[in-house]
Amino acid sequence: MAVSYQSMNRQQLQAELESVRAQYEAQKEKGLKLDMSRGKPGKEQLDLVSDMLTVLSKPEDCVSDGIDVRNYGELSGIPAAKKLFAEILGCKPEECFIGGCASLTLMYDLIAKAYTNGLKNSEKPWAKLDTVKFLCPAPGYDRHFKVTQSFGAELITVAMTETGPDMDAVEQLVKDPAVKGMWCVPKYSNPDGIIYSDETIRRIANLKPAAKDFALMWDNAYCIHEFEGDFVPFADMLTLCREAGNADMVYEFASTSKVTFPGAGISVMATSVENLAYLNKLIGCQIISYDKVNQLRHVRYLKDKAHTLELMKKHAKVLGPKFRCVLDTLAREIEPLGIASWQKPTGGYFVSVNTANGLAKRTLALCKEAGVVMTSAGATFPYGIDPNDSNIRIAPSLPPVAELQAAMDIFCLSLRLAALEQLTK
Amino acid sequence: MAVSYQSMNRQQLQAELESVRAQYEAQKEKGLKLDMSRGKPGKEQLDLVSDMLTVLSKPEDCVSDGIDVRNYGELSGIPAAKKLFAEILGCKPEECFIGGCASLTLMYDLIAKAYTNGLKNSEKPWAKLDTVKFLCPAPGYDRHFKVTQSFGAELITVAMTETGPDMDAVEQLVKDPAVKGMWCVPKYSNPDGIIYSDETIRRIANLKPAAKDFALMWDNAYCIHEFEGDFVPFADMLTLCREAGNADMVYEFASTSKVTFPGAGISVMATSVENLAYLNKLIGCQIISYDKVNQLRHVRYLKDKAHTLELMKKHAKVLGPKFRCVLDTLAREIEPLGIASWQKPTGGYFVSVNTANGLAKRTLALCKEAGVVMTSAGATFPYGIDPNDSNIRIAPSLPPVAELQAAMDIFCLSLRLAALEQLTK
Repeated sequence: MAVSYQSMNRQQLQAELESVRAQYEAQKEKGLKLDMSRGKPGKEQLDLVSDMLTVLSKPEDCVSDGIDVRNYGELSGIPAAKKLFAEILGCKPEECFIGGCASLTLMYDLIAKAYTNGLKNSEKPWAKLDTVKFLCPAPGYDRHFKVTQSFGAELITVAMTETGPDMDAVEQLVKDPAVKGMWCVPKYSNPDGIIYSDETIRRIANLKPAAKDFALMWDNAYCIHEFEGDFVPFADMLTLCREAGNADMVYEFASTSKVTFPGAGISVMATSVENLAYLNKLIGCQIISYDKVNQLRHVRYLKDKAHTLELMKKHAKVLGPKFRCVLDTLAREIEPLGIASWQKPTGGYFVSVNTANGLAKRTLALCKEAGVVMTSAGATFPYGIDPNDSNIRIAPSLPPVAELQAAMDIFCLSLRLAALEQLTK
Repeated sequence: MAVSYQSMNRQQLQAELESVRAQYEAQKEKGLKLDMSRGKPGKEQLDLVSDMLTVLSKPEDCVSDGIDVRNYGELSGIPAAKKLFAEILGCKPEECFIGGCASLTLMYDLIAKAYTNGLKNSEKPWAKLDTVKFLCPAPGYDRHFKVTQSFGAELITVAMTETGPDMDAVEQLVKDPAVKGMWCVPKYSNPDGIIYSDETIRRIANLKPAAKDFALMWDNAYCIHEFEGDFVPFADMLTLCREAGNADMVYEFASTSKVTFPGAGISVMATSVENLAYLNKLIGCQIISYDKVNQLRHVRYLKDKAHTLELMKKHAKVLGPKFRCVLDTLAREIEPLGIASWQKPTGGYFVSVNTANGLAKRTLALCKEAGVVMTSAGATFPYGIDPNDSNIRIAPSLPPVAELQAAMDIFCLSLRLAALEQLTK
């Protein structure tokens, strides 16, 4: 029976260090090569949706609401795709702009246009301001943080709690007119897998930012992505913000990247009709429309929310065992030792482990040495710097369970070794 | 036998005006509704490429060079797509970045990044400069001009000649360090259908712009788009610029929008390997990769340059009769009257008519009144203002020939009526 490392004396720790090191070296010699760096679906999930490829196969399949999707036109997307996303998100079709294969592009382009042209309620383009600050609940999604960083915004870390971002801090920070927005993943947050509480969501919708053009980047990336249990309903943030007098504050994003093909799906930005009217003029300089053939492929294949949720159950059947492998291994190998903690998510794509301070970098270096590549330490914090060197994001979706188990064994040994090195220093 | 309006006396003109007005009114009563505003391929062309839809139909079809195109990765595109575009453009695969369904987006995003981050050789982001000027050979493509206009650049009109932009003017203008680039459509220019002469191309490649980050926007939109005769070879502008010591100056663009499905194809930006290394870091904040499933669909369907040129011959069979209808009607109805001139292109998507000064707006208003919508007057000039109110862009690709003939009959009557109104004023 394993005991907490805190309860061991120096001699016991030394013996444990030698034992763990030997086990680690033995694993290392197996010469594994496993990539768990990204929330990449596995081949089994890709094969699930193969019928997508041929759902449009003849010219006459390519007409939707009288629109031939093979030709130019319809900047904001085909009505049928707006209807599908509106049903899933709980907003109105006319609040939806349908994008290409990456919601990240819609987010980046929105921030880019804020810089070069300003948003609807901007007094001037952000590029003309001395300072732009952006709130980054952390741990969070590195690609979000990098978008705002790439434009030179100052990233302000906000602590994540078990109910979402620390709202006391957020409410204070938005009093600064230089604070222009906040990144959020409200359901199964990346990486913690937390669902923001109703109270947090209410407080966010009711924010009173000093900046009239504050952009709430509401990335609902995992809105229907349960891997355990039934679909968990969520509130329509557009309605909540409108009711709070903040109709133009929220930009919601979602995509089919983890529903159909990652990087070959369709995406959506949902925001007020007034924001869209403003943005369509700018986006109309950039594109005639995103790929409408692929939009219609998705509409024909996914059909509606109920049918899409059925498909998500099939994904869950593939993903569930992978997440259970991670969580069971952590519970068995790490929990008794008192050297790390983690959430137990039931959806999303990650397990976020918080080690004792100062162990994340060393743990991941040891993993890498033994052939297991994980998201690099610090990636979940602004500027890639985790002040406590503690957070590690595990992405279990890509490898088959057997490989995942091997990787988790190496991870647990690496974490134990890192902890013991520190405790015996 | 028609005679030139210039040779008519006032009485003859008055009689002709009454006769033409009667014909026009008779046409108007037919209540036609025809859209010739954009270079939109017709349904027959879309149906030509229907096999595209099912060229990838099984999971095992989706692997190319060991890459499963259904999953994340490969920011700059799959190697097979780079190879295909490199062969068509005459550049190297490693000089190609594969984009989504619109080369316009690649152009817009390049200019956007110049503004927010600067290009590789920029001293500072263009947004930090007091003045940015951009050269716009005109008549030209309205969407090009609008890209730079949307960022607040000052658009400088350069005259188009029969051999391309007026190079004496261009060589003078680029001495101004505020001049940051130039829009070009080197083959079958939009709208004139002119192929830049070898001499013009050589002079462009050898420009000595004062701005170190001068961006030559080389939109090779119609590089393989002959509708009469055989494929006309063109020089690789990347090589010419490199040989002239301007390796980083040129950004070449092309797409399959008028090869497969308009708005659902793939696109390319070709530029120096050094420029791409710089840009990939910025584009990597915006997207993980463009749709690689669609990239592979195109590679499997188009195969190589020779096979793609065979497909373009099939498009030519559809487009040729439409352009001949336009050119024959103009020759028959307008040429003898001496009220307009035009090029006789053998490729591209447009016929550009230059009326006697002051007739374009009135002609198009008359067309519209009779149910024929054309590209609005002025659209081919910066800021939408044609100083001579003379240029009209005819886009014959969308309507079937019978409808096109009806539209051209209305166009010719409208032009004659506008001319006669002016001459009898």
